[in-house]
Amino acid sequence: MKLLRTPAELIKWSENIHRKGLTIGLVPTMGYLHEGHLSLMKRAKAENDKVLLTVFVNPSQFAPGEDYRSYPRNLKRDKRLAGQGGADAIYAPKARTVYPLPYRTYINVEELSGVMCGVRRESHFKGVTTIVGKLFNLSSADRAYFGRKDFQQSVIIGQMIRDLDFKVKLRVLPIVRARGGLAESSRNKYLTGRQRKQAISIYQSLREARKVILGGERRADRVRDQITRRLKKAGLSVDYVTVGEAKSLDSVKVIGKNTYIAIAAFCGKTRLIDNMLIKTTRHIIL
Amino acid sequence: MKLLRTPAELIKWSENIHRKGLTIGLVPTMGYLHEGHLSLMKRAKAENDKVLLTVFVNPSQFAPGEDYRSYPRNLKRDKRLAGQGGADAIYAPKARTVYPLPYRTYINVEELSGVMCGVRRESHFKGVTTIVGKLFNLSSADRAYFGRKDFQQSVIIGQMIRDLDFKVKLRVLPIVRARGGLAESSRNKYLTGRQRKQAISIYQSLREARKVILGGERRADRVRDQITRRLKKAGLSVDYVTVGEAKSLDSVKVIGKNTYIAIAAFCGKTRLIDNMLIKTTRHIIL
Repeated sequence: MKLLRTPAELIKWSENIHRKGLTIGLVPTMGYLHEGHLSLMKRAKAENDKVLLTVFVNPSQFAPGEDYRSYPRNLKRDKRLAGQGGADAIYAPKARTVYPLPYRTYINVEELSGVMCGVRRESHFKGVTTIVGKLFNLSSADRAYFGRKDFQQSVIIGQMIRDLDFKVKLRVLPIVRARGGLAESSRNKYLTGRQRKQAISIYQSLREARKVILGGERRADRVRDQITRRLKKAGLSVDYVTVGEAKSLDSVKVIGKNTYIAIAAFCGKTRLIDNMLIKTTRHIIL
Repeated sequence: MKLLRTPAELIKWSENIHRKGLTIGLVPTMGYLHEGHLSLMKRAKAENDKVLLTVFVNPSQFAPGEDYRSYPRNLKRDKRLAGQGGADAIYAPKARTVYPLPYRTYINVEELSGVMCGVRRESHFKGVTTIVGKLFNLSSADRAYFGRKDFQQSVIIGQMIRDLDFKVKLRVLPIVRARGGLAESSRNKYLTGRQRKQAISIYQSLREARKVILGGERRADRVRDQITRRLKKAGLSVDYVTVGEAKSLDSVKVIGKNTYIAIAAFCGKTRLIDNMLIKTTRHIIL
């Protein structure tokens, strides 16, 4: 497995592959890999000739006061797991080569970036779309793989690809969950044993909400209130619970056929997110 | 010469060319071609296997109240001139295929887009960088050609290419001037015979400024005042006169080795821009 440290090395690697007529599957991550990332790499391996894993804790998507400095980093561990996942190369650049000074250009997906996680994390998605756009350009990847856990991110990146005419194909894969249903996340490392148990209530509240909806409930505020109560009872501090339409991210009052529920909650100082897409049929009587 | 009307047609055309190992030179324009555009096409032809001219009056770079609707359009004329310039294809899409609804993604080059023309035309450069980024992605052009007349634009696009890791190579070509020195511009069509004569004072004021600087003047405010007086005397309404550093666009107080002077002025209702790069030597005594 090749370790690429600079944009120039990445360009050379990807051009060499495309010159042979082979395809590249891109898996952008911030490292500290978990089972979710492994599922992305495995799918990328199945659909492309070569898999490029990127490991970069991207400063532009952290606000001052967030966990940029403390975010878990362990390239040695990531290399080992990337090998297991079937990656052919890891791109792990230094921040100063990614953002040479004076750095001034940003990609922003308006509207979608200002709701949900974008309320608390104001410039977060601007940082995400900028780094992802840069990775698309450097790698000329044929397909790019993201986890559904970051639901809002996946919708925003889909919109960016469409709007800016990137040629890459987007693949969004299901959430991988640990025992008890906690969504895999590098930030789970921050949790104590007791907090992990509390955090499981996020998934449980989603399951309970789905049950209630499939049982006929269509009032979004009722579902939201139920989840909020459940999370508070477990000792979590709720950032948001959104019941919305899956393409536009617009909140809904009445739950329709393709509704998602997204949650962000603090467990101690750790902010966790999770979501569920709930498909109802037309046949339920409102 | 091929006429391409949709993003899909453009992708097909460019992929076909790259599959053969040939190169593409991109000349993005808003049409109503003039000698400046022709010089870009000729250079593109000399440096690439194929030349792609794009003709698109881009709505996102016009503010409400600007001349989006009245901007001169004549595709038949453009086709003829494109043929003379050696273009192999013209991409002339409809606005709704370029910005399918809901359209939400913009590229913005911060700082550089907010000065000079960006003061009066607040979201202008955001529209420019967005459409140019889209054209880079659709065409996968090897080189892109812009005129130095839009000096600020060329600096902003250079920054965007560097920051977002676009692989295209930027070529910025000298201003082409009509008789008397008026910089070629599609908007010159708006001018009456009398206004054309007035407008020539823009170039004359730049020449006079250069003369004064080469004669030893280093105080930017003196140079600026001289130009402003000259333009007013000719009956123009000055939008800005900037004396600045050519890479950062920062205004300077003392004129250095690589200084540009940029002017925007209204001749009647027509807003005209022009600029000059002035290289001094170290040997002049301050």
